[in-house]
Order: sequence, then C-alpha cells, then structure tokens
Amino acid sequence: MAHIDLQNDLPGIRGLMAYRPDTAKHLNALAETLLRSDDNTLSRGERELIGSYVSYLNDCFFCQHVHGALAGHYLQCDIQTIEEIKKNFTAADLSDKMKALLAIAASVQQSGRKVTSEQIAEARDLGATDREIHDTVLIAAAFCMFNRYVDGLATWAPTDLQFYVNRAPQRAAKGYIATDLHT
Amino acid sequence: MAHIDLQNDLPGIRGLMAYRPDTAKHLNALAETLLRSDDNTLSRGERELIGSYVSYLNDCFFCQHVHGALAGHYLQCDIQTIEEIKKNFTAADLSDKMKALLAIAASVQQSGRKVTSEQIAEARDLGATDREIHDTVLIAAAFCMFNRYVDGLATWAPTDLQFYVNRAPQRAAKGYIATDLHT
Repeated sequence: MAHIDLQNDLPGIRGLMAYRPDTAKHLNALAETLLRSDDNTLSRGERELIGSYVSYLNDCFFCQHVHGALAGHYLQCDIQTIEEIKKNFTAADLSDKMKALLAIAASVQQSGRKVTSEQIAEARDLGATDREIHDTVLIAAAFCMFNRYVDGLATWAPTDLQFYVNRAPQRAAKGYIATDLHT
Repeated sequence: MAHIDLQNDLPGIRGLMAYRPDTAKHLNALAETLLRSDDNTLSRGERELIGSYVSYLNDCFFCQHVHGALAGHYLQCDIQTIEEIKKNFTAADLSDKMKALLAIAASVQQSGRKVTSEQIAEARDLGATDREIHDTVLIAAAFCMFNRYVDGLATWAPTDLQFYVNRAPQRAAKGYIATDLHT
C-alpha cells in the first residue's frame, strides 16, 4: 500500500501522476522528449534500455520492467534478453558505443561525481557524440528521480512480467503524454 | 571544464539548459511547479530548503548554493544559517514537521526504498499532509536528478558563495521559466 492515499488504484508512477497532475504533465513531457523524440541519434530502444538499466541498479521493480519491456519492444528482443543485459551488459550483444554509454549511466546512478573523464573519452573514441553523452547522463539522472518517486511513496507494481510486456506496444504507440494508459 | 562542449560559458545547470533547450523547458517547468507554485501549503522557502539539503547530501556545489541562497532569501535568514541547517537540521530552528520532512528527504536521497512507514507516520503525526509528504518526496527525487545532471557532465560553478546570495532575489522575482538569468 502506498505511503499516502492516492485516491486511485493505478500502479507505480501512474498512480502518483493521477494524484498530482500538475507535476505529472512536466514529468511526462520530459520523458516524451528524452525517450521518444525523433530528434535523436540514439534509438528509442537504446534510450529505454538506459532507463531500464538505471532502474535495475536502483532496484525499482516497476520502472525497470515498464522500460525494459519497451526496450524489448523497440529492439525486437524478448524480456529475458533485456534481463540478461541488465545483469551484465558487458557480455551482451550491444555495440561498444552502447556499452560505454551504459557504463556512464551506471556511474550517474551512483553520483554525478562518479562519471570520469576516462569514461567520456572512451565513449567518444567509440563514436558517441556530445549530444549522445549529454542525453545518456540526463536519462540516467531522470530515472534516479522517477525511481525515487515511485519507491519513495511505496507504490504497488504488478509482479507478473508479462503484464509489462503486454502493455509495451500500446505505450510505444501512444507515447508518454497519453494519460489513458496504466503503465 | 565540462565533459562536453556546451558552446556557452554559463555555470551549472544553466549551461546545460542553454545547450539542450528542448529538455530544459520541461525541467524548468517542473521546478516552477514544484518549488514556486502558490498552490502549496509548504512555503517556497521550505521547498527550496529541501532542495538545497538534498543537493548538499549529493555533494552538488552548484545546486546546494543556488537553492540554499533562495531558501535564505525566502526564509529571511543568512547563508550561514542555511549552511548550519544542512549540516545538522535536527538542531536547527525549524518546526518539528519540517524536520520530519527533511528526514524523509534524506532517505529519498539514498534510495526511494529507504523511506520507512515510521518516517511517514511521524511526519503525519506532526501535521504533514499527504500532499506535503508527496511533494517532499518528489522535490528530493527531482534534486537527485538535477544534481546528477549538473555533476555528471562536470559543469563549472562559481566558488564564492556571495555570487549565489546576490543572484537569489532576481531568481526569486523571475522564477525558473525565465531563461535570461544565469543561476
């Protein structure tokens, strides 16, 4: 049960957003721009993967599975593959550039101060642009907010991973601004 | 020097916002609603204090002093008092309710999962409403994003605390949507 009376039974961040729409609209707009905008050389799948990975590191069940299922949807791989990437991305079938960006995201999850010049240089050597590095840091930072919001108020989350897989295509089609979806 | 070429010499988050205005507008809108909206029973000073305290815990020099100076401006106390509150809020001249909310914010800074039912019950017993608890958690979570964004890209920050004190009245007057201010 959530720490406060949300006056709805929606799971995760959706319950919080229905409770406080004035802040929700900015959070959703941020997610829409960061994770879905076409003006980006990181694919939607890559951006969702960064978000899911940071949520995994923060042990946020709801966020890691919502965004893991979306990453799987966009990258056309099953949820087990996403789970394996989160556990050990270095061994995964990902580009070296993407692995360097995930390493930066992992540092951001600990603290902004943990990102090193060496990590940035390596990502750049592997082809990452300044904008891609910027967006990786901001996506990782934003999920450190979303995860704390979701768990800091003790929202509930469906435990069946298939729930998230089933919802992903609809969210992918409608985006984050749509408020008629539950995940 | 920042990790990426921001193409401007603005300090802290302002340099990042000038570099990437598409995400900046949502970040500023979130700050405006959370920290300044009149539709809130927490004062602007109390909300800025939560932000400054979380930024202190995250060791983010720029954010803790921008928002510390704003807290001092609104609460009509000097920067040294704000510094003392950040170091030990339990000994400060604050309401018991505010201390309970700062304790919740400190837990959120570590992880959403660190917030306990006991902390929530104590805050409620001391008069905190559900909305105040919600906003405390979201402000603390949002600063975990802002701090990581600012430090994860290694932005620069003025070292003279008077810089922040001098800028606070202008930011307080204009709000976060105004993009012609530097802090």
